Amino acid sequence: MKSQNNVQMDRILFDNYKNKIYSPEEAAKFIKNNSIVGVSGFTKAGDSKSVLPAFAKRAETEDVKITLLSGASLGYDTDADLAKNNAIYKRMPFQADPTLRKSINSGNVLYVDQHLSETAEMMHNEHLPKVDMAIIEAVYVDPNGYIIPTTSVGNSANFAALADEIIIEINVSLPVSFKGIHDVFIPNSYPNRNIIGITNPQTRIGTEYIKIDPEKVIAVVFTNRPDSPAQISAPDENTTAIAQHILKFLEKEVDDGRLTKSLLPIQVGIGKIANAVLSGFVNSPFENLTMYSEVLQDSTFELFDAGKMVFASASSITVSESCYRNLIGNFENYKDKIVLRPQNISNAAEVIRRLGIIAINTAIEFDIYGNVNSTHLGGTHMMNGIGGSGDFARSAYLSIFVCPSASKNNNISHVVPMVSHHDHTEHDVDILVTEQGLADLRGLAPKERSRVIIENCIHPDFKEQMEAYVEEAQKRGGQTPHIMEKAFSWHLNLKNNGSMKNLVAASDVHREMSVAI
Amino acid sequence: MKSQNNVQMDRILFDNYKNKIYSPEEAAKFIKNNSIVGVSGFTKAGDSKSVLPAFAKRAETEDVKITLLSGASLGYDTDADLAKNNAIYKRMPFQADPTLRKSINSGNVLYVDQHLSETAEMMHNEHLPKVDMAIIEAVYVDPNGYIIPTTSVGNSANFAALADEIIIEINVSLPVSFKGIHDVFIPNSYPNRNIIGITNPQTRIGTEYIKIDPEKVIAVVFTNRPDSPAQISAPDENTTAIAQHILKFLEKEVDDGRLTKSLLPIQVGIGKIANAVLSGFVNSPFENLTMYSEVLQDSTFELFDAGKMVFASASSITVSESCYRNLIGNFENYKDKIVLRPQNISNAAEVIRRLGIIAINTAIEFDIYGNVNSTHLGGTHMMNGIGGSGDFARSAYLSIFVCPSASKNNNISHVVPMVSHHDHTEHDVDILVTEQGLADLRGLAPKERSRVIIENCIHPDFKEQMEAYVEEAQKRGGQTPHIMEKAFSWHLNLKNNGSMKNLVAASDVHREMSVAI
Repeated sequence: MKSQNNVQMDRILFDNYKNKIYSPEEAAKFIKNNSIVGVSGFTKAGDSKSVLPAFAKRAETEDVKITLLSGASLGYDTDADLAKNNAIYKRMPFQADPTLRKSINSGNVLYVDQHLSETAEMMHNEHLPKVDMAIIEAVYVDPNGYIIPTTSVGNSANFAALADEIIIEINVSLPVSFKGIHDVFIPNSYPNRNIIGITNPQTRIGTEYIKIDPEKVIAVVFTNRPDSPAQISAPDENTTAIAQHILKFLEKEVDDGRLTKSLLPIQVGIGKIANAVLSGFVNSPFENLTMYSEVLQDSTFELFDAGKMVFASASSITVSESCYRNLIGNFENYKDKIVLRPQNISNAAEVIRRLGIIAINTAIEFDIYGNVNSTHLGGTHMMNGIGGSGDFARSAYLSIFVCPSASKNNNISHVVPMVSHHDHTEHDVDILVTEQGLADLRGLAPKERSRVIIENCIHPDFKEQMEAYVEEAQKRGGQTPHIMEKAFSWHLNLKNNGSMKNLVAASDVHREMSVAI
Repeated sequence: MKSQNNVQMDRILFDNYKNKIYSPEEAAKFIKNNSIVGVSGFTKAGDSKSVLPAFAKRAETEDVKITLLSGASLGYDTDADLAKNNAIYKRMPFQADPTLRKSINSGNVLYVDQHLSETAEMMHNEHLPKVDMAIIEAVYVDPNGYIIPTTSVGNSANFAALADEIIIEINVSLPVSFKGIHDVFIPNSYPNRNIIGITNPQTRIGTEYIKIDPEKVIAVVFTNRPDSPAQISAPDENTTAIAQHILKFLEKEVDDGRLTKSLLPIQVGIGKIANAVLSGFVNSPFENLTMYSEVLQDSTFELFDAGKMVFASASSITVSESCYRNLIGNFENYKDKIVLRPQNISNAAEVIRRLGIIAINTAIEFDIYGNVNSTHLGGTHMMNGIGGSGDFARSAYLSIFVCPSASKNNNISHVVPMVSHHDHTEHDVDILVTEQGLADLRGLAPKERSRVIIENCIHPDFKEQMEAYVEEAQKRGGQTPHIMEKAFSWHLNLKNNGSMKNLVAASDVHREMSVAI
């Protein structure tokens, strides 16, 4: 144990923990080989920044492996370093790290890609093996030994409740005034499960702390590393066009009397496209907007600053460096406008349906019938994971998916005959948007859907080719016409020839051209 | 207008309706060409048995077409006769009729296959065009002009609330003592949507009648036709084996302390397999069982009679002729054990998650990663529809899918490399069962899933062939290994050669055999 300065000791208001202070390296030794570890952290926010990295370091020289559960993705290179040193046996429910991704796709790491609302439910029901240890980032520890979380709640409260041992990682870079933005609620176990009584984004139903059994705390560690910043991009031509299509659509919904100018609470998926789309709402006729989402990104704070948004509920705050600095520097301006909840509450079907969420999520690709792939490249290789997109899309008031119509010099079409992997079925998708336009699928049968999607969403380079596919498919009949032996031909073409463009047709054109010459 | 006997007039306790009595043929003339008609009826129960058939008859000689919304499938040949006479433009959210199916697959009828919970929600949100007319079967009309429904609630209350005009079809074959088994609740509109306060299958939150505006009633019609009976099959070798695997699994869950002997409320999908599986619970160690399902079948009443089940909530009662006779004849024995709710309440995600439903549904086929096809043959042709399977699977405590491992002299494997149509993704499937065995997928990564599914569920005739597929696929890497160009090869083989069996390999065997000889 090393001596601690006053700033640090002020963060421990429960005396029994004061003789449990360890360095990250010492604490990392408490993690047992083959154990199941649940860590705080949701989309880079509020993750373990000293103990888990120290464990990754330990794995450089020692043969240790854990099953690692988190809220969602972790920050910095923690997942990468763990993967590099073969320290992960199994990982769930989400990740977004290129190195870990490689290990997953090569078969070195088992990855369970879950709806973000599901992990806590399955743990609670003992449908997953018991968590041995929880590592939870805290702003401070209160006089009862309870944890005040940092920039995310994620699965932290559930890990802490279910684990045998807890390591608390106090992050002194965050102000103690963070206390009050969290609302921690764990429903009763079956068969006495209770109502989740949230009736608007502001409703509070839980506590401002994570209640734990102090006896389970085996170590307290300090860090002063801030969250790793989100990579955000300025809106570009595509995201601006997508945003405009959505705004125009929503304005029409308001004009038709289906929505008011405050719309209904918005959810926006993590990532550059979704963030840029939400930024587009700054210049919109809407007002008094609210969010009931899983993550608050830069766009949320832009909307607060623009006076467009009045309240936002989520499970984490994941923002760029400048937004983070502004948030911490002007925390009192935002504090009463936000609440962070456990991810099985932020993403609860019950609440999403009750509040009537407008859900905007990013697709990797979608098909002519409205099925969406959010996770896999080429049908086999994992990108990140489904995240909360399925939680929201399934129970939303409006389920919207967005992506560019094409990429890589228009060699890849993101509108395909059949998605190579299904994450969201046609049943759960209302609206599809690319920079080309918006397809409103509500109440449409599959044959109507394919027409509307091709008319509005596909890139012009692929339109003719898709029309040919549909024409040939429809000749064979059926509710959902397909040429099954060609359903993945675009993906195979991309794999074999570097383009989804119909090369046979292209070479035909060449042949015709040379004949003409 | 024809004279009515006393039995009939006793069923109208609201005088204003007494001058609105019409014959079915007269009432059917009120249905306008190109209008949108919402009818009572859920899995053959409580459907229109005189007006809608009379409209089908009218279409024999007149060019009339409607968009037809129901609760779920209709009884007798109503859907068939409508389809035969080209009287349906668009149909939603479910059907199960061979003639209509043919019209759907040939492109004559547009079919919107919806989650059964969704139709009412979308109507209420005006995400579907307005319903012009509602045709609702009633046991009787109360002194306020309100409707006492019959053997189903389905979407009736929502149709009646939203339609401009209502036709009431009073079915005198049912006793007036049916009043009291219904619990009709319509949530408020957004943004004032309320909690659905059901905390156990017995909870009542609504009214015993469908409240309507009597001014909208344009006709009252009488019928005495009972519901068309469900086709049920005695348990066979396969369904018995499937039931045994499930019972053994649930007994283990009880032994491990995750469930009590009363389990949690059970949902069982419509159909012969699911019904036979539930019958298997008669000879089980479980007691005080409850159901929170969408339809009560013969097996529910067998479990009541065996003293195994104490309460069952659903949206309809669909039973065989003998079970129906017993139910009507001994109604007082069952009346306080059942409740029928609107299908957006029986199938509400909020309630399904809160009660912790054990959901057992039938698959057409499933794949080695746990994706399920519930609707399409060969990836293109509609069978019935997704029904409520997605409502329950998505939010259940345990999501179980069952089907035989093979059929048609074992030429069709119901365990395939990739399902030809995705209705339920791997994320929403916990347990798969065939007569071969049970695969427990909880907490497993895709590569583990494929191993467990092949070990436990696949028919021996297809095991080697599937192992070869997986081996080749895994060589290519990825989170979800597939040979994309062969993903549907089994289906294509079936289509082209009448069998999913690897004929090339078979001929190789022949060749090797002849060489050996």
